[in-house]
Parts: sequence; C-alpha cells; structure tokens
Amino acid sequence: MAEKNPSFVLEKAGSVYYEDRPVPELKSPYDVLINVKFTGICGSDVHYWVDGAIGSFIVKQPMVLGHESSGIVHSVGSSVTSLKPGDRVAMEPGVPCHRCIRCKEGKYNLCAHMAFAATPPYDGTLAKYYSLPEDFCYKLPEHLTLEEGALVEPLSVGVHIVKQAAVRPGDSVIVFGAGPVGLLCCAVAKAFGASKIVTVDINEERVAFAQKYAATHAFRSQRESAADSGARIVRDCDLGLGADVIIDASGAEICIQTAIHALRVGGTYVQGGMGKNEITFPIMAMCTKELNVKGSFRYSSGDYQLAVDLLASGRISVKELITGKVSFKEAEKAFTDVKAGKGIKMLIEGVED
Amino acid sequence: MAEKNPSFVLEKAGSVYYEDRPVPELKSPYDVLINVKFTGICGSDVHYWVDGAIGSFIVKQPMVLGHESSGIVHSVGSSVTSLKPGDRVAMEPGVPCHRCIRCKEGKYNLCAHMAFAATPPYDGTLAKYYSLPEDFCYKLPEHLTLEEGALVEPLSVGVHIVKQAAVRPGDSVIVFGAGPVGLLCCAVAKAFGASKIVTVDINEERVAFAQKYAATHAFRSQRESAADSGARIVRDCDLGLGADVIIDASGAEICIQTAIHALRVGGTYVQGGMGKNEITFPIMAMCTKELNVKGSFRYSSGDYQLAVDLLASGRISVKELITGKVSFKEAEKAFTDVKAGKGIKMLIEGVED
Amino acid sequence: MAEKNPSFVLEKAGSVYYEDRPVPELKSPYDVLINVKFTGICGSDVHYWVDGAIGSFIVKQPMVLGHESSGIVHSVGSSVTSLKPGDRVAMEPGVPCHRCIRCKEGKYNLCAHMAFAATPPYDGTLAKYYSLPEDFCYKLPEHLTLEEGALVEPLSVGVHIVKQAAVRPGDSVIVFGAGPVGLLCCAVAKAFGASKIVTVDINEERVAFAQKYAATHAFRSQRESAADSGARIVRDCDLGLGADVIIDASGAEICIQTAIHALRVGGTYVQGGMGKNEITFPIMAMCTKELNVKGSFRYSSGDYQLAVDLLASGRISVKELITGKVSFKEAEKAFTDVKAGKGIKMLIEGVED
Amino acid sequence: MAEKNPSFVLEKAGSVYYEDRPVPELKSPYDVLINVKFTGICGSDVHYWVDGAIGSFIVKQPMVLGHESSGIVHSVGSSVTSLKPGDRVAMEPGVPCHRCIRCKEGKYNLCAHMAFAATPPYDGTLAKYYSLPEDFCYKLPEHLTLEEGALVEPLSVGVHIVKQAAVRPGDSVIVFGAGPVGLLCCAVAKAFGASKIVTVDINEERVAFAQKYAATHAFRSQRESAADSGARIVRDCDLGLGADVIIDASGAEICIQTAIHALRVGGTYVQGGMGKNEITFPIMAMCTKELNVKGSFRYSSGDYQLAVDLLASGRISVKELITGKVSFKEAEKAFTDVKAGKGIKMLIEGVED
Repeated sequence: MAEKNPSFVLEKAGSVYYEDRPVPELKSPYDVLINVKFTGICGSDVHYWVDGAIGSFIVKQPMVLGHESSGIVHSVGSSVTSLKPGDRVAMEPGVPCHRCIRCKEGKYNLCAHMAFAATPPYDGTLAKYYSLPEDFCYKLPEHLTLEEGALVEPLSVGVHIVKQAAVRPGDSVIVFGAGPVGLLCCAVAKAFGASKIVTVDINEERVAFAQKYAATHAFRSQRESAADSGARIVRDCDLGLGADVIIDASGAEICIQTAIHALRVGGTYVQGGMGKNEITFPIMAMCTKELNVKGSFRYSSGDYQLAVDLLASGRISVKELITGKVSFKEAEKAFTDVKAGKGIKMLIEGVED
Repeated sequence: MAEKNPSFVLEKAGSVYYEDRPVPELKSPYDVLINVKFTGICGSDVHYWVDGAIGSFIVKQPMVLGHESSGIVHSVGSSVTSLKPGDRVAMEPGVPCHRCIRCKEGKYNLCAHMAFAATPPYDGTLAKYYSLPEDFCYKLPEHLTLEEGALVEPLSVGVHIVKQAAVRPGDSVIVFGAGPVGLLCCAVAKAFGASKIVTVDINEERVAFAQKYAATHAFRSQRESAADSGARIVRDCDLGLGADVIIDASGAEICIQTAIHALRVGGTYVQGGMGKNEITFPIMAMCTKELNVKGSFRYSSGDYQLAVDLLASGRISVKELITGKVSFKEAEKAFTDVKAGKGIKMLIEGVED
Repeated sequence: MAEKNPSFVLEKAGSVYYEDRPVPELKSPYDVLINVKFTGICGSDVHYWVDGAIGSFIVKQPMVLGHESSGIVHSVGSSVTSLKPGDRVAMEPGVPCHRCIRCKEGKYNLCAHMAFAATPPYDGTLAKYYSLPEDFCYKLPEHLTLEEGALVEPLSVGVHIVKQAAVRPGDSVIVFGAGPVGLLCCAVAKAFGASKIVTVDINEERVAFAQKYAATHAFRSQRESAADSGARIVRDCDLGLGADVIIDASGAEICIQTAIHALRVGGTYVQGGMGKNEITFPIMAMCTKELNVKGSFRYSSGDYQLAVDLLASGRISVKELITGKVSFKEAEKAFTDVKAGKGIKMLIEGVED
Repeated sequence: MAEKNPSFVLEKAGSVYYEDRPVPELKSPYDVLINVKFTGICGSDVHYWVDGAIGSFIVKQPMVLGHESSGIVHSVGSSVTSLKPGDRVAMEPGVPCHRCIRCKEGKYNLCAHMAFAATPPYDGTLAKYYSLPEDFCYKLPEHLTLEEGALVEPLSVGVHIVKQAAVRPGDSVIVFGAGPVGLLCCAVAKAFGASKIVTVDINEERVAFAQKYAATHAFRSQRESAADSGARIVRDCDLGLGADVIIDASGAEICIQTAIHALRVGGTYVQGGMGKNEITFPIMAMCTKELNVKGSFRYSSGDYQLAVDLLASGRISVKELITGKVSFKEAEKAFTDVKAGKGIKMLIEGVED
C-alpha cells in the first residue's frame, strides 16, 4: 500500500508532532486494517504527554498516542471470517502473547508480553490506520455510533472493575470518584443488579451528574477522619452494617481509607483508580473484617464484548459522557482540556480522507 | 449440680486470680458440659492479660481466660445424639447467632453476635467445666491425645487462613512468620498440595524448625527495601515471576510490603498476623498486579473438622509444637513464658479431680 | 391465648377439612406469630392433595396445607428486635436445624432436619396463625401489597434457580416451561442481566404471556428429535454456538434432552422442574461438552431477601401473575383450579377476623 | 531437512501401515521439533483403530495414530527461549486456536478449532518427529524418565477430572472404574487431599491394584438396584450422609446411576469415562439433592504442568502403571493388547535412530 499513515506522535514529555508513517502491514492472516474514526483521551494518555512516563513505562523513542478508538475496517487478512471491509468496530487496543500461563488461564490482561497501544514501546491508535487481530475488533450494531464505539474502551475498564468486585444483584455499592471510569462503574454496577449505588466526589457538578446518570445515592466528603467518614456514609446512605462492595475510581488516599471502614465484614474492595504508589492503609480493619481487596488492571476475556452488549441493549448509555470533539489536527487541544479537567470525555476525530 | 467450677480469672490488665464459679448450666438440650483437660495459650490471651484489651474489646468485668481447649464430655443435654459422657473432644470456642445473614451464608466467623471464649464480655475455657453446643465439639479419634486436641484451635486458624488463600496443588507459597500460626500455615499449605513453601522469620531457630517441620525453603531478611527484598526472595527461591500465594503470620509492616512485591500478577495475599492498625502499603503495585488481598479472622464452617481430619490421618502433626505444660495452679506462668517468647506452644492442664 | 386457629387440613389423598387448632406457641424468644393473609397454591400442594405423597414424603397424619404465604405480625417473642405487631411480612416457610454442616456452610435448603411447611409431618400455613423465627420473616415495604408478598415464595424459587445457573450479565438463557416458576425464572434472569431470554412451552398462550412478561425470544416445539430441536432453537434464536444457560421448569423429558443439545460447550443446565424420577439422558454430550448440570431445591441463604428487593425496586413485577383469589372457605376450589391448569397463580385469602 | 519421518498410519478401520512422511516444518518461530521417544496407547486410539471413528470424528483419510507421547527436542524455532535441542519433554498433543472466547477465558480444551493429535483430520504422534509450540512441551526434570513422561498425558486427564470435581482436602471421593484413568484419578484425588478414596470395579485384580496404589477403600458391586448399591457403598465405606465427590471413569450405566444415589446432598459428580451416548438417569434425585454434575474433556490450562509437578515431587508415581513396552515396529501389537484388556498401560518406543 503506497498510502501514508498520518500519526500523532509523542516525542518526549510535553512534545508532540504529526508524522506520516507507513501504513501497518498485516502480520497475520487473522489481522485486519482499521481506518480509525474516533479516539477518546484518558488520564494515562495525558500522563505520558506531561511526564513522558508512567511508573516504569518510559517513552524512550517517539510513540504514537491514543488507545480508546473505534473505526471502520479497511481491509482484512486471508483467514479473517468475522469481519469485512466497511464494518464498524470498537477496537480493543492490547494484544497478549497467548502463550504464557496468564493468557492460557483466561487473564490475558496480566500477560507480561502484552503489546498495548500507547504504552511504550508500542504505538497507539491516533493514526489514520491501525491493525489488530480480528478477535480484538468488536462489530458495532447499526444503532450504535462510532462515537459510542470509542467509549467501549473506558466502559470495558468499568466492566472489568465491576467483575473484579463480583457485584451481584441486590448488592450495595459505593463508587469513589465520579470521573469517566467512576461514572461507568456506577452504570455497570447498576446493570449487574446492584440495589444501591452511592457516588462520592468532592466536585459537586460531578456528583450531580452521577446521580442523574446511574447512582441512587450521593455522599459528600467533609473534613473528618476516614473512620468517621466511613461510619457516616454507612449511616447516611442506610447501608446497614456496611456496603457490600466499594470501588475506588479516585486514587485518593482518604477515599481508600474511608472505603475500608465503610465496608461490611466480608465485603469487597476494588482499586480501580491510579494514585500514589504507597498510602497509609488500615490493614488490621481489613484483616479482622475479612475483606477482599483486589486490584483491577485494564480488561480481559469477555469484557469488551459485554461492554458492546450493554450498549447495544440500551442497558448502559454513554452518549451523555461525550462532552466534546476535536479534529485530528487539533489533537493536542484534547490533551490540554483533559489535563484541565474540562468535560467528561473528549474525542479526537480520525484523519479526514 | 452442687459442684464447683474453679476458674482462672482476669480481673484487669495484669491482675489474675482463681475463683470457684458455678458450673455452667446447659442452656439448650443440644448443649454438653465438658471437663476441660488442656488449654493452649496464644498471643491474644497474653494481650488481654497485659493490656486488658485488644482494640475495641475491653475487659470491663472479671473474665475467665483461655480458648484453645480440649476436654472430656461430662454430661449431655436431652437432644444430644453425637456425643456421650466420656468422649474426648476438641472444643470450638465461639458460638455464633445462627440468625444473621453472615451465619446463614456460611461465614459464621463474621457474625456480629458471636459469643467467643475469652473475648469480653464472654468467659473463656480456663475452668474445670465449660459448656458448648454438641456441634462445636469434635470427637478425637483414639490415637490422638487430648494435648493434640488442644492444638486443634490454632490449627483451625491455619486451615482458615490457607482456605482464604485458596492454596491449590502445585502453588508456591511464602509464609512470613514462624510462630505457631505461621508454622501451622506451612503445614496446612503442604497438606493442600503446595509445591514450594518458603518460611521467613528473623529468628534463626524458628526458621530452622520450620524447615524441619513443613517448609521446603527458607529466606532470611536483610536490611534492604521491601521491593529489593521481594525481588530477592523470588530470585533466591526460584519462584519464577513471583509467588502464587503469600501469607503473613507476622504482622510486621516490612513483611507485608515485601509480600506485595514478591507476589506474581494475579497472586493472593492473606493477612493472618496481627500488628499495627495502619501501615504504609504499596497500593498501586496491588492494583496493577491485580492481586487478591484478603483478611482472615478465626475459623468458620468446616475448619475445625478439617483440622481434626488432618491430624487424624497423620497429614499434619502438632506434637512437636508442644514445648511445655504447666498445671492449672501455675497458669500464670504459661502467660509469662509466652510473653517472653519461650517455646512454641505452652499448654495448661485442667483442674485435677 | 384462648383464641382458635382455623386451619385447612389434608386428612389423606383427596380428603380435606377445616379444623380449629390451637394457636401456635412461640417456642423461642426469637419467634413471632403471624396472622396469615394470603397463600398461593403450587403444584406440590396439589400433589399432596391428589396423591397424599410426593416421593418418600407421605402424609401419614392430618396435615395443614399451604406454604406460599404473607401475613401481618400479631405478636413477637421477647428477643425479637426487627419486627413489631402490625408489620406486613413475606413468610419463608422452612426452618432448618442450624447445626448440621449444610446449614453451617450456607446451604440450609439442603438441611436433613428441615421443618418445611406442608411437607409431612410439618403443618403448613393455611391457618389463621402461623409462627416463624423473626429472621424467616421479610418486612414488605409500604408500596408492596400482601398479595405480592405471597408471591415472594415462588419468586425465591426462581431466584435460587437462577443463582444455581450462575446467570451473568450478557448471558443467553433458555427457560423450558412457562408456568409460574418458568415465568419467574425469565424475570430473574433478566434482572441478573441476561441478554437473551428464550421461553419454550407447548401452550401458545403461556408463550405469548412470557414474551410480554420477560422473555426476549420464544420457541415452539415440533415433532422432532431432541438433537434436531436443540439445533433448531440455537439457529432460530441466533444463539451462536449454543446457549450459555438453560433452565428447565417443565420437568418434561424431551425438554431436558433438548436442553443438553442446545447448550454451548461449558454451558450450565439447571433442573428446576419436577417430573419423572428417571429419564433417558444424553450423558456423553454432557461429558464431552463439559457441561455443568445442577439441581435446584427450594431456596437458601439470601434468596428471600433478594426476591423482596427485586420486587421493592420494581425490577421484577409479579402482580400480573395473580390470576385469581378465593376466600379461605373456598380453599379447595383453588386446588381444583390449579389442578385444572386454570390461570397462573391462585391465592387463598386468610381467615376473616 | 532431507530426513524421513517414519509414521504409523491408520488407513481405515482395522487397517494400519508404516509410511515415510516428510519431517514436519516449524510453522511458527515458537515451534519446536521433537524426536518422539515413547507413546502410550489408550482406549480412544483403539477405538479409531477398530471402528475408524469416535462419534462424529471419522477417519476419512489416512491418519497417524498416537497422542500420549514424550520425546527429545531436536530443533527449535527462532523465537523459542524455554527449550533447546536435547531437552526431554512431555508433549501436550492438542493446540487450540487462541482466538475464540473459550480459549480466551481459559478453557482451551473446549476450543472448536482444536487441532488434536490423532483426532481426524489431525495426524498423531506415532512418528519419528512431531512439532509443537514450545508452550505445549513440558521439560522433564532429570529424575523423571521419558517413559514416565509419556504418562503425563493420562495423568493430565486425571488432573482435569479431579479439578472439575473440585476435590478439596478432607473430601470423601468414590472413583468408579480402575483402569488407567480411574487409577490416576484416585492418585490425583489423594494428592488434592481427599481423606477417603473408594475404588469400585468388577475386576478383582484391578481393585486390588487400586488399593495398593492410591485408594483407601474398595467396593465390589453386586446384583442389586442402583439405589441399593448407592446405599450400600455409603454404609460399607462409612461415608456418613453420602460421598462428597464421585468420579466415573468406567462409562457404565449402572455406575453412573449408583453414583447419583451415593452422593450426599450438594455433592459433585464428574463424568470422566466414555460409554453409551444415552443412559437412564435419576434426574429427580439429582434435582432434589441439588447435585453438581459435570463433564470433563481432555485437559486445559495448567493441567499438564501440574501433572509434571506431581510426578517431579513424588506425590504421584506412575511407574507401576507401565506394564509393557513394544518397539515402534510392533506398534500394532500394543493396540491388540490394549483391546484385549492386557496390563494397565502399554508404551510404544520411538523410531530407532
């Protein structure tokens, strides 16, 4: 293919440029080439843009940004059977090795050899074309837009967190943080049958939005100890002996501490938000209450498909989370806005043909 | 019954005395009266003796101490079918309410109404007689001694911890701490089929004992960061990408931190040991490695029976853990010795007839 | 209490009468006395009425019938804290022993000592008064009627079946049989997040009702082999490689066989309906497809509470299933009508004051 | 490679021949070429040899037989890191697609696109050379022989069955059938901590062997109903209210029926043996006892590795199961002997260099 592949590249912390790169070749007969149409921006993208690194992942050579994308199938490999050119798809942006024990046991998100879009050294999706194996592309039903398709990625993050939390019908769930992931966790918890969904944030607007969107209760923090805050949320939201499940999508130390105190004995806590590497943690309360405390990392087997199903069936709506769109040429503006905390989810349009 | 019930009573922190109390009456036709024969002493007993309290459990009125006991059935209620006078039994020392949701879902150790021996305000087992429902008494087979029967309690603690850890055949397991509970966790992990069992302690004698007893590997701490220590234990003990399961039976902050770094992605950590209420905890490693971090509290459905079965079948031996016996009259000496860290498990004999 | 307790008694197969029995005494301080207000009739009630027995359960002495009841608390024992006279409650009609290993592990429905209403030799709820422990009474919120409260029993059967089936969001579920339990299984599967719910029945009216009520698809049987029928349902309902979950609420041999053929590999089958003791079963398909085949018996820990929550939150409605009411004096008519297959759920009113 | 690949080929039912085929090429840089050294013969091999088919799997073109093999690595692909020429390996003989949902969720044994050795149309391992991805080869520790390496395949079948059965420490387990798979199930159940292991077979010699090998109890069938037989095994083997787990490795209808009656309420049954497609099955006992009835098909994630670990640690020994060896030239004799029920496990040696 003689065509060019315009790409939005991070050179190093704070420095981006556009570049015409070669169009990706299909490495396997099961691969497809996708014309990327919409890409959402999330906190981790901004992190790389600002710092050039997240923890031990360091941008050492120019890297295309972006990983929350949808697009239209441009061409397909010789063994592809489930897709054809023109199909509209949500794109799962990480391909695991399939050979390690984590992959084989069904937890491919934990694969040590994962090639994940826009995680160094792997290029991201903010380009005209991107290639993926067919089984990492999820066909969108006609009534879903490509904009919604780009939201399948953060929704899958929420699906994975709520699965880790093992939310069951009738559960009471508290979600700390009402950013995109926290909001989507509320929505997924509701779809999983939670009876009570309490949203907690320090931003009043976000709390109000969360209540309209999916939460049944809201809680506002005060200056008080974590133990007091935990007791108060249980009392104010009528949670009996404590919440069944608490999800942190804030990464804030005080939220994590409050959560441990607000859980019922035998309850489940899932860390979904990123924050400080180390915090002060009430380990003895965790021990004697026999809590289940779990991490959640990206998404794995079945998560993307379920996210598409939840959208397709109307049980979850994501349209209202899309608060802005910019053209491919203005990509950096999306990063600036997300960094500034503007809106909920900002999309970057694909390269115009 | 006109008989007296000599009891070893904690009046307040540091102050104990003997008292003749009334022999317990059988409150239900399913209760039995047991002549207590041996009682082990553990850290929590010593805690009450020294401080008069553990956390929010405060000794406000004189309380009989002791909860690790075995004995001989003295008499039985009218509805008892599984026991008769003269039967030798291990005594499970906590009776739950049976009515709350935690009891009904099979986690009676989390019952908010639990009446547990020697946890205020409930009297313990260091008396001539103690009454229990028949289903909390576990008949000892002939070839097990009453001394071994008293060890069923700490062994059940180990069984519950290892169940919480979901140890499966082939797993690699690290156990921090080689006191009684740590040692028993090693033994139970082995019985559950763990392939590698690494003991970690700062006390060389304990490490040596653990290796003879049940561990396949030993690790000695050095002055180094938790991350370095975690990396070194994985390398030194040939644990591949990290341990499948780590159990803390030490309560030490550095051990807990090391554990999080030494686990493989998706691995399981169980907090078994008691220590500081709050510690500095590597929460982001927990999150991105998608660990399962769990508490473990006492024992629950099936644990006591399995502990007896493991002893009866010879898969676990506890004789070698019994490092001393004192008469009922010398009970306080057992507390003094345990406080001083002497021996592994000290038993107090029952009241002589 | 000098008052009388009018009761509807089955003497032996086909023979019923009314009798004034003594008002039940509260055996435990945790018991409450309930003035029964509505009682539904189900297939098993009719079975006892017609045959005087179900399997090894044989009516050997006169037995009060009925077990699907709601009522108003008349008086409470001295230790009762959660209820007071006048409270409206759904009544869970089986009290287990709390002492056996099945009770202690959270599966009290499997208790060998269960005292279940209207299962010989235990009297049922078709009386003016019936006593239960407070924790087997579930307070109805104000906006639920006592009629709906009587439906909590069959709804709990459906909840337990769907829990046994481990229905997860996104699953495709087939329910064979569109009687009360089959319909409620459809509704519960929907509340648990099933994406597709296929109703199957030979009765066209029932199928039509199920589609309006909770099913997303319907399938009509033809004269064909089970294998052909299984293949056709998968094809017609667009179930890919087969259904994730199949529930049988029909008890019909051909349905059970069809189900095994219609499941995907690794799928789950739950037997909810009662039928012939033995059937011809495609065991090798079960084996090589590695299916999970499970029984479901009554309800257990948390089921009743979840049923009330599902009704209270409006996620499930049962009003439309109530197709008739008769007075206490006409109780036998309800049995006649259910035997004749009239309506969906018939209620018997309580004794008038 | 100009070398030849002598192979033992099934032309059609009852007709075999030797043929020099091309040495397999490494299709992926992760593949290795193995010089096959020992191959065991099992019932399914004999089935193809006798009938030319198993169910819907029909030998339509000449197919190399054999799938229970060990060998020595001959050469490795360019990306292979875990193996080098000369390494001795157990060979897992089925390679799944890695792309379908079953593969991705960790159940690759249920992959619809599985390429399994000696299952039409895929050639088996009875050849001088066979190629596999490196992650389907399991390095044997020095103290294990290649003969033992060939037994890893049937041992993995046993591991998978016992995992399906969720055998836990302390469980009572009945295994119907004392052929190779039944024997290995006994051994694996023991390694998983089962307290009682009852072997059942009509062949006295096999029962005697099973008792020496791994079973703790034996049961001999009589002419009696399945219900009577089930009751008698529970009584004779002191199984309380029934066995916790029953595994069928016989495929016999009467065994399957007996098993359902011999299980405790809530117990687990796994179908491991192959027999008639359809049998008369006590479905109502399954339903009201709320049993878990499961199939087991081949092996999946982690099974082969655990089988090697169990052998390497000495927890399971398979040497005593090897009752004969024949040279590659005499391969057909092994089939004749297995068909005649001679010995337990017969091995065919590799092609001599």
